[in-house]
Amino acid sequence: MARPTPLSGFPEWLPAGRVVEQHVLDTLRRTFELHGFAGIETRAVEPLDQLLRKGETSKEVYVLRRLQEEPDAADAGAGDRGGKGDKQLGLHFDLTVPFARYVLENAGHLAFPFKRHQIQKVWRGERPQDGRFREFVQADIDVVGAGELPYHFEVELPLVMAEALGELRSIGVPEVRILVNNRKVAEGFYRGLGLDDVEGVLRSIDKLDKIGPDKVAALLVAETGATPEQAAACLALAAISGSDASVAERVRALAAEHGVTSDLLEEGLGELSALIDAAAVRAPGVVVADLKIARGLDYYTGSVYETVLVGHEQLGSICSGGRYDTLASDGANTYPGVGLSIGVSRLVSRLLSAGLVRSTRSVPSAVVVAVTSEETRAASDAVAVALRSRGIPVEVAPSAAKFGKQIKFADRRGIPFVWFPAGIGADGEVVPHQVKDIRSGEQVAADPATWAPSEEDLWPRVVPAGE
Amino acid sequence: MARPTPLSGFPEWLPAGRVVEQHVLDTLRRTFELHGFAGIETRAVEPLDQLLRKGETSKEVYVLRRLQEEPDAADAGAGDRGGKGDKQLGLHFDLTVPFARYVLENAGHLAFPFKRHQIQKVWRGERPQDGRFREFVQADIDVVGAGELPYHFEVELPLVMAEALGELRSIGVPEVRILVNNRKVAEGFYRGLGLDDVEGVLRSIDKLDKIGPDKVAALLVAETGATPEQAAACLALAAISGSDASVAERVRALAAEHGVTSDLLEEGLGELSALIDAAAVRAPGVVVADLKIARGLDYYTGSVYETVLVGHEQLGSICSGGRYDTLASDGANTYPGVGLSIGVSRLVSRLLSAGLVRSTRSVPSAVVVAVTSEETRAASDAVAVALRSRGIPVEVAPSAAKFGKQIKFADRRGIPFVWFPAGIGADGEVVPHQVKDIRSGEQVAADPATWAPSEEDLWPRVVPAGE
Repeated sequence: MARPTPLSGFPEWLPAGRVVEQHVLDTLRRTFELHGFAGIETRAVEPLDQLLRKGETSKEVYVLRRLQEEPDAADAGAGDRGGKGDKQLGLHFDLTVPFARYVLENAGHLAFPFKRHQIQKVWRGERPQDGRFREFVQADIDVVGAGELPYHFEVELPLVMAEALGELRSIGVPEVRILVNNRKVAEGFYRGLGLDDVEGVLRSIDKLDKIGPDKVAALLVAETGATPEQAAACLALAAISGSDASVAERVRALAAEHGVTSDLLEEGLGELSALIDAAAVRAPGVVVADLKIARGLDYYTGSVYETVLVGHEQLGSICSGGRYDTLASDGANTYPGVGLSIGVSRLVSRLLSAGLVRSTRSVPSAVVVAVTSEETRAASDAVAVALRSRGIPVEVAPSAAKFGKQIKFADRRGIPFVWFPAGIGADGEVVPHQVKDIRSGEQVAADPATWAPSEEDLWPRVVPAGE
Repeated sequence: MARPTPLSGFPEWLPAGRVVEQHVLDTLRRTFELHGFAGIETRAVEPLDQLLRKGETSKEVYVLRRLQEEPDAADAGAGDRGGKGDKQLGLHFDLTVPFARYVLENAGHLAFPFKRHQIQKVWRGERPQDGRFREFVQADIDVVGAGELPYHFEVELPLVMAEALGELRSIGVPEVRILVNNRKVAEGFYRGLGLDDVEGVLRSIDKLDKIGPDKVAALLVAETGATPEQAAACLALAAISGSDASVAERVRALAAEHGVTSDLLEEGLGELSALIDAAAVRAPGVVVADLKIARGLDYYTGSVYETVLVGHEQLGSICSGGRYDTLASDGANTYPGVGLSIGVSRLVSRLLSAGLVRSTRSVPSAVVVAVTSEETRAASDAVAVALRSRGIPVEVAPSAAKFGKQIKFADRRGIPFVWFPAGIGADGEVVPHQVKDIRSGEQVAADPATWAPSEEDLWPRVVPAGE
């Protein structure tokens, strides 16, 4: 087998990088659970017809076929048809579609409102780019109600994400800015202006960062039938941002200027203001109203969110989502929801490639127990057992090489301590257990039943790269 | 959308079941890391030609195709060919093939011997049965050396698994029995008997539990050219089991009876005895030599392992593996390894379906903070923030319903405590913060800055179903 090379779009980390990713995942999960979100995991596949119900992303679906299957047996030639009635399957491209299906499938066993977190891989057959992968990890939180879902969850969820991402500041993750908007504001304003193709306007506005205001204005005129004045008003709305009460005032002033009156606009401004006010108290400086946030997906109906890493804005959003009045519906019942999704692979990939963070070592072990001779390996094993029984990660040296080589074994892996088991010295004297801190060279007598490394050295830690 | 139904072979758990699975995964990971195994994760896909190099399982591979791709563009019509040179991809069916590829790809960045654990989903397009899934989680540990790997790792790895599975006893997981054999014993004995089709004999012996000794004897005669006497000798070897030094003695006696002398047999017996002796000290009663363990896969070259849940033997092995002299090779270098893989989904599925374990609640929250009125929701949020800052999982009631209904909200989810925020009572008096244990009904004044639940109530716990 020749030396294999990486597959573009399918990121993998070396052990030290995986320590970083695992720390991020553990931190997110802990924050989500402190807020009462139950963890679930769904299968990686969904019936293809379900995946194709959602526009945009679904065209990038990976379809599965069993290799064993007869190529001619199935009509489309690509289904997972183990028997009659088997459905054609594809890999999920997000965690929202599977969650909606899970809610419908298990509604009778769930207590609503149901708060769940879900941390899994998803797949999209897109062209790989910086921060855009074909296989990547998402970390989602959603709350879903049966029939109704109070607005306050639209305030709560971005604040949970602000807290989760804030917990990562100490390892060197840059500040984040959560940009929020409200569909009701946009829709109320556009309709008040006389523009009824709300979807079309949102799709054009969504391109602002990519193509700039002049081209967006041209698009609005060409594709939504807007007059140049209406297009200018839409762009003026999109230009408003801020993190205090003045945002609503500026929107109202702009509406008045264009003769727009709309109950929906007022409702949206009330919601947006409530979110900004709460965020100013609970996560000062993190949440910013930004009226250009459109999020092209047509199922959002209230708040929408995007999140940028300050100083890495060109990476795109690392945490997005919003409110949807119909996450799922089985005819009899409708389940509204609100949720956000962190692009963990995008975030971790940037942390590693930009050298923002590092792990203090690439292996879990805090201690290597040296082996004096293969005949006394059991004595080294016994030391390891004693240390592990008190929660200290330990490995035993792979061979009874010279001690210098065993110390080098630890050093190469960043393991801070080497333990020399008690034994009989060259002159027949009893030599006690000793442990050496290979960073300082300090070596002291130690008892396997009581010795412990400092809390700081116990497990690998993730720290800002400069530390 | 009609109510969806489960897909056979793709298991999913309700939130309470996921608490069990997560506890199992966390416990395994912690034990692996206490032993110094570094966690890695590989992508879910491998080039199809790599997956097909390994026999048996590979025929059940799921092949991927991008939906967007032109069906006629690629010669096979099913490849992931985003551009020229893209390889056809399939989902991995185990974690060994990807690990071997990872080792070759990253050999220059890894320190050998390299100990890794890997906990991920794998996919096999098999016919679903009890304990046999199309998508399932495996938890693997392997040690791989560069050029060489000392035998003692063949002793260490099953003992790590014994410890990991032993840690699960307290939640109600049955005792396990790790059955071990050594390929050198089997090969030495068969060749000494005059049977050179070692693979063929192993494949037949592997069917003992399924078809019984008479049919295996017939198979040996028909397919490996054995005489009835040779077949009987093979079956006599397979009938030997035990957990002390008598095993080797019985094998030697059987070999002498049939005039078998073999250095390879002696080497294998020496290794097997060393494993049994070490296990008797470090995991008494868990490891049993069982000479019928064949493990059909042809790449094992030394120890082989299978593990049964006592009382659930018909479930099949929940943890298997062995030693392979060539895990990977790039021509210049060869990487021998030894590893075991736990079938986590098989184990968890049985724990849940047999009602062996339960979680104390289905959500993380230990406390629901009641909301007196929507106007004072911020006061309830503040209590939640104070409790969370001390590591207590808390959620705030979704609506300012009657307190009875809010208590019911907690009760339905198994949340033990409801917190009533301080406020002004009906008669204008100041009412202090109070917390109610809804199991006992006891309600006491409490301070958000200092109150905490007992350690036992802090997080959901997994316990034996009877408790």
